[in-house]
This record gives sequence, C-alpha cells and structure tokens, in this order.
Amino acid sequence: MDLTYQTIEHLAPLVRKKKISPVELLDAILARIDALNPRLNAYITVAADAARADAQRAENEIRRGRWRGPLHGIPISLKDNIATKGLRTTAGSKILAGNIPDEDATVVRSLRRAGAVIVGKTNMHEFAYGVTTENPHFGATRNPWDTSRIPGGSSGGSAAALAAGMCFASVGTDTGGSIRIPASLCGIVGLKPTYGRVSVHGTVALSPTLDHVGPLARTVADTAIVLRAIAGRDPLDATTLALPPPRLPENLKKLPKRIRLGLPRDYYFDCLDDEVRSAVLQAVKHFEQRGADIVEVALPSLAASVEPSNHIALAEAAHYHHKMGWFPAHAAEYGEDVRKRMEMGPEVRAVDYLRAFEMQERVRAEFDCAFAMVDAILAPVTPVAAPQLGQKMLTLDSEEEPVRAALLRLCRPANLAGVPAISVPCGFTRAGLPIGLQLIGPRCGEEMVLRLALAYEQAHAWQAQHPDL
Amino acid sequence: MDLTYQTIEHLAPLVRKKKISPVELLDAILARIDALNPRLNAYITVAADAARADAQRAENEIRRGRWRGPLHGIPISLKDNIATKGLRTTAGSKILAGNIPDEDATVVRSLRRAGAVIVGKTNMHEFAYGVTTENPHFGATRNPWDTSRIPGGSSGGSAAALAAGMCFASVGTDTGGSIRIPASLCGIVGLKPTYGRVSVHGTVALSPTLDHVGPLARTVADTAIVLRAIAGRDPLDATTLALPPPRLPENLKKLPKRIRLGLPRDYYFDCLDDEVRSAVLQAVKHFEQRGADIVEVALPSLAASVEPSNHIALAEAAHYHHKMGWFPAHAAEYGEDVRKRMEMGPEVRAVDYLRAFEMQERVRAEFDCAFAMVDAILAPVTPVAAPQLGQKMLTLDSEEEPVRAALLRLCRPANLAGVPAISVPCGFTRAGLPIGLQLIGPRCGEEMVLRLALAYEQAHAWQAQHPDL
Repeated sequence: MDLTYQTIEHLAPLVRKKKISPVELLDAILARIDALNPRLNAYITVAADAARADAQRAENEIRRGRWRGPLHGIPISLKDNIATKGLRTTAGSKILAGNIPDEDATVVRSLRRAGAVIVGKTNMHEFAYGVTTENPHFGATRNPWDTSRIPGGSSGGSAAALAAGMCFASVGTDTGGSIRIPASLCGIVGLKPTYGRVSVHGTVALSPTLDHVGPLARTVADTAIVLRAIAGRDPLDATTLALPPPRLPENLKKLPKRIRLGLPRDYYFDCLDDEVRSAVLQAVKHFEQRGADIVEVALPSLAASVEPSNHIALAEAAHYHHKMGWFPAHAAEYGEDVRKRMEMGPEVRAVDYLRAFEMQERVRAEFDCAFAMVDAILAPVTPVAAPQLGQKMLTLDSEEEPVRAALLRLCRPANLAGVPAISVPCGFTRAGLPIGLQLIGPRCGEEMVLRLALAYEQAHAWQAQHPDL
Repeated sequence: MDLTYQTIEHLAPLVRKKKISPVELLDAILARIDALNPRLNAYITVAADAARADAQRAENEIRRGRWRGPLHGIPISLKDNIATKGLRTTAGSKILAGNIPDEDATVVRSLRRAGAVIVGKTNMHEFAYGVTTENPHFGATRNPWDTSRIPGGSSGGSAAALAAGMCFASVGTDTGGSIRIPASLCGIVGLKPTYGRVSVHGTVALSPTLDHVGPLARTVADTAIVLRAIAGRDPLDATTLALPPPRLPENLKKLPKRIRLGLPRDYYFDCLDDEVRSAVLQAVKHFEQRGADIVEVALPSLAASVEPSNHIALAEAAHYHHKMGWFPAHAAEYGEDVRKRMEMGPEVRAVDYLRAFEMQERVRAEFDCAFAMVDAILAPVTPVAAPQLGQKMLTLDSEEEPVRAALLRLCRPANLAGVPAISVPCGFTRAGLPIGLQLIGPRCGEEMVLRLALAYEQAHAWQAQHPDL
C-alpha cells in the first residue's frame, strides 16, 4: 500500500490497532520529501530527527494502550510563520532566517497534545504578504500539478506538500485567502475558520484584524480532524471564542434534510474563467439535485470593500513590522514586492483606516442578512486555475488584472466578515489544473460548512486523483 | 364598523382610496382614549390638538393624491422616553415631568416622514428601568385583560393602549425585554430588532450596550410596516447599520420551503407556568406540522449571563444618570425601586463590567453556533401570564422568584446577543390572560422572524380576540 496518499481518517484506526506504526508512516513521508522536495520546494525546513523522536514516542504510547486520538502519530507540516520551539521559524523572510523560537505557538501545543508528529516547516510567501509563494530567499514553491505554475499562497508550501503526498495535513494562516487560494490551486482542502475560533498566539502577524489560523488537508474529513485539535479558547489570545470543539467527521456525515444555499448575485461570479464558472455552477447544480433550495443572496458592498481591506492590511502590517524593528531597519533584506507594500503602509491615513472599519461593519451586516436566509453561500475560490510562475497579469472577460488582485478578490470578503470559508476541489480544467469550490458559512458555522463540503466530496472523486510526479 | 381594532394593513388601502379619512380615524382613537384611559392609564400625554393638525394635513395630502405609504394618516403612540419636539417627554420620571424637547428623536422624524399621526405619549416604568409600569409619578398602567394586573413593562402603556384599541401601533424601547414583556402580557405583538437596526438617537438611554428601539402593534403585519418606517442607518447614531429596509408584509407572506427551528435545550424552558409551557409547545408542534424540522440547540452560558447582564445595565444606567445630572442630585425625586438601582450602579466594579463583555461575546458565539444550524429559535417570552399589581414575588416549580427577575429572564439573552426577537400571541390561560411566543432570529434576521410569526399568526385567531372593556 502506498501510504503517502492515505487519509488520516483511514490511517487513524490502523495506527490505533497497531497495524501501522507512526515510525513507518514518518519514514514514508520523509522518503517522499527526499524524492520530491528538491523539485517542488514545499519545505523550508525538514525536522527529520525531531520528527523521528516524536514518532517513536507516539509508537511507544500507543503500544502501551494510550491512543490520544486520530492525529496520534500522524506526520503533519506547519507553515513557517507558526512558532515551533527549538525549530527554525522564518516566516519566509531573510530577517528571520535564523529565528529559533523559545516557545511553541498555541496551535502547535494543541497538535503535540493530540500526538501529531511535526515533520517540518513549509515554504510561504515572504511574511505571508502575497499569494504566489515565489519566495526570494528560499526559492519558489512549484505546483505539483504543473511545476511551471505557482501553488498559490501564502501557504503555498503546505498545499503543495499535501498535493504531492509529503504530509497528511498542515496548518496555515489566512489573512486574505492564504489558506484557500493554495488549496484551490493545488486541488486540496483548506478551511479558514471563524475569526477567533483558532488561536493566533505564536504566529507571525500580518494584519491582526484579518488574520486567521486554519487547517489544510487532502479531504474534508481530515480537515475536520485537524480543526477539532486546534480550535478553542486560548487565554493568550484575547480574540478567541469559548466554544465547544467542532465535532469529528463521523458526526458530520448527516446533512440536515432541509438546506438552503445562497448564490451571491453580486461580486463572486464577475470576471471568471469559463472553466471555473462552469465547474462551480456544476457544484451548485449538484446541491440542487440533492434537494437543496438555491436562493439568490445580495452582498452589495463587496466591490467597494476591496480598497478598505487593503487599507487595513497595509496599515496593520506596516505597524507590526515597525514595532518588531524589521522595517525600515532591514528594508534591504525584504523581497521587492513585500518591501513595496511596507513602504505603502505608512501612507494609509487614519481616516481611511477608520472608514475601513465602517466598511467591515457593513459587510458583516450584509453577510448576517444573507445567513439569516441561507445555511451557506456557494462561490468560486479563485477566478482562474494556477497561473504560471513569474506571471504578473492575467486577462478575464477582456479585462487585464494583476495576478495578486485576481487571486485575492473572492477570498478576502470572508476575512473582512470573519466568517468561516472552505475550499474543496470541484474539478479540473482541460489542461488538468484543479479548480476550487468555496463554501462560506455564518459566524461559528464551521460544522455546517464541513457537513456540506463532506457531502459534496463523498459524491465526487476529485480527491482520489493525484498529480503525476 | 368599529375602527379602533382595525389593522393598519386593512386601513391603509382604505385611507389611500379616501374611503376612510385620517381625521375620522383619529377621532375614533381619541374617543376611545377618552373612554378608557381614565381606567387604564396607558397614556401620560395625549396630544389631541397637534394630532388633529397632523391628521388634517395627512388628509389634505392624500386628497391631492400624495399618499406616503401605509402609515400615512394612521394614529400611533410613542413610549414617553422618545423625544418629541414641542411635546412633553417625561421618560416616566418626575425629574423630566416638564421636559419639552427641541428636537424629534430620529424614529419620530422617520414616522412623521411616513405620514403617521402621533396621538400621544404612553406610560412606562420610570426611566424604563423596570418591568411592571407601576409608575410612582403618573400612576400604574393597568392590563386591559384584567385591570387588577400589570401590563408588563417598561413599555406597558404602549402595549395596554394597543390591547384596548387606543392606537394602531406604537414605538417602544427594549433593554431587557421592555417591548416583548408587555406585548406578551397584553396579547399584542412586539419586536426587538437587531442591535443597530433602528436608531436610538433622541431616546432617553438606559444601558446603551443593550438598548433597542422597536415597534409594537396588534398584528405581525402591522409590526413589519412600522419596522420598515423606522429601520435604517442614522448618522446621529454610530451603532446603526446600513442595510436595506425590511420588506413590507405583502412580501413576507411566503415561508421558505425548508425551515429548521431551534428548541433550546438550556434555560428557556426551566421554571415555567404549566399553561405557558403547553401553549408554547403547542406552537412548536404547529410549526412541525407545517413541515419544519425542530432541532435541539445548545445555549449553555445563558444561566451564567444573568448577573453579567445586570452588571452592564446597572453600571451604564448609573453612569448616564450621573452624567445627566439626575442622580444623586435629584435622588429624592426617584421612585423607590429605580433609586435603589441607581445606588447599586456605582458598586459594580470595572472588572465585573469587563467580565460581562466577555460573557456577551460568549453568548453571541453560542447564538451564532445555534443560528448556523437553524433559522430561528422558539421559546416563551415570559414564564407566566400577567401578575397582579403590587405583586413582588411569584412561585414556579416551588421556587420563589421576584416578579422582576422572572419577567426579564427569558428576554434578556436576545439583548445581550443583539439578535432580533419578537413576541406574538399564542393563546390564553384558563383565566383569560394572554400568553406570548418568542421567535428569536440571527443578527439582521428580522425578515425571517417576521415571516415565521406572520405564518403562525395567520393560522390562528388569537389576534382577533380583544379584552372586554
């Protein structure tokens, strides 16, 4: 059996029954990384020795009959802006190239408590401030489906590692789509939870108002397993919510009988690639055929919220980098695109920042109105499949648009509103590139989003296809 | 035809077609007030002359073909803590007994723009800080269904006036149930909208974090008509939301095919009078028989939120009364119960106030979780029908409880969470006292709540029954 493309859902009972050992799993993953990482550059740091010690400890515990749950002994990766005690955490930056944290981020502590084996730190767009993962210091990550293309970002290494069988799950961050964009472009699953559902303590901040930590995995079930391990109130992060942990996938398999799904009239279906549009509308039809009511929902302020969202991110990122003593002190050590944004940050006026929060309130209220009528909203994740490495612009409906703006635009509204949103594979282009379906839910509606995504996934075989590597 | 118990929905087309004149409507209402207000004491001030001038102006406009909409020429009342230019606004207090505002509250401006005729100012619990409307300065309002009983409060005058046919609609305020409690005890409809949906500018504040302005009427349709007139962004109230106005009742008559309604497992069904419990469960069964799925929802923090809610109200009320120079300067002019609360206010510690906001976040998240699964939650409004005037305690499930605490407890969670909640009549006790059903919806879900209430009301005839006066 080829272990590297197995799911956690499938492996966990085998690990529990000692039919597969955590050390064996880790060896398979490390061999896969040895074989493929030189081409794909998904990992910045592979922690082979520490991971082996962790896997051995997990194996011993399980042998003594102490199984901690479905992540016990499972090799996972972490985006490299999530602090790991004693393990280099670069945030994809030259400035932090030698940064070895004294402490684990809260999510890392939670994952270790669940028995997960941390196999390494994945490549990312520098400081998470971009969507291509063309990292100027550690090299570009390549999309496993076509290595001449970007994996998306900023959690591009996590998504590429999953698509190539180099880990079983990963944890990333999402400030404007950084989990969902690479999930969509690499054909895996990525969930941005409700704002405050998962602690951000111990992650390198980008824009605290919009920052979210969340899981990436190859299936919806595996995504739910990781979410359950990392969600919850954290005294070290005042924004976290005290809620019961989301349930495990076996408890999410029944769909409510009566479902109403929203199709956004505004914004999400403008300027799309035809193949993306038709794959997403096919998914809409699938839900309709299963008996869901499809209802139009209005989100009229989204187009006007693009610039305010940029203002929040620019101002907060500049403030944080200044406070940390990184910018302008080390301006020369930034890649060109992120340096340019750091220079733009201080130009955002306080009145624009305040206006942006008024816009945030308006967008939240519009989503609230929509979710008073529907269980979830269906939309594309990205308007196109993976662009080429180095590509700066793309053309949709004869409009030219920067790649960065195009990849962000359908993801950022959920960050502004703080509502959960998942990317699940919903097909391939004729060129064989993955397409993502976005399911956006109401605040704290992770379980509804996961249920719907699980039902969709089970009716399709997208996740059974893997890139030819 | 007896005009005074007609609905706005029925009257508006007749007014528009000049089959009924606004002056005729007003005369009927004024005659009814003359006949009944001495017994019921629902009005503090009747503005007969100003109302007649308004009704005449409406009649002239309509005769010239300028019909403003369904409130044009309709006599309505306002709770006496809502500022009316040139018309005494007492907030039920001795301190403000001679207060004549220079300016209308925003909702009054909106109502005048819609052509409504303001017939007078209704009695209330002093400063809105109580639930009995036993006003020490202007006398107790009596419940039209049994004049030995309270109408509830603090908007008790508005509810009694409606139940007795002394106006066609009213606007009140609700900080812990002050619209819904009297609606429930007087057998009419009262809606507390989403926090920020209706401007509070120009109302006498009680606790700005929890204060809401909203409509009372005899039917759900009339409630929707008034809500549409008063909802919306107000530059003078920074908490207001910019959302399209809720639709008129004719657009709310179709229920979505697939409805999921929540039955709270926690809190709302503890310590109820048996007749109240069985009337509410009968309503639940009604929705089930219409095809709705009834789902259990968890709101585990509500019991622990009672004290924090009190802390917010006590501290904010004391702060406001101090800032206005009312307390302690005029302590002797307060009724005993409100004075006691003003003395308790400064004893709330800042740490308790901050903890209360943490509890507010938790309760909001629990409601969010519930509303990710259901369209609305069904519950009683008050655990008992109207208590006697002067009654201080009541016994439920052999537990003694202050009347005040009992009437507040099922209403206040929606204030803390800021979610919309409506009270609609759902039957009578064997003694002939009205019972209220509460429908609680997600943030900005007024339309869903109104749709459900409208469907429920149309299937029953409770609103066709009137007290014997």
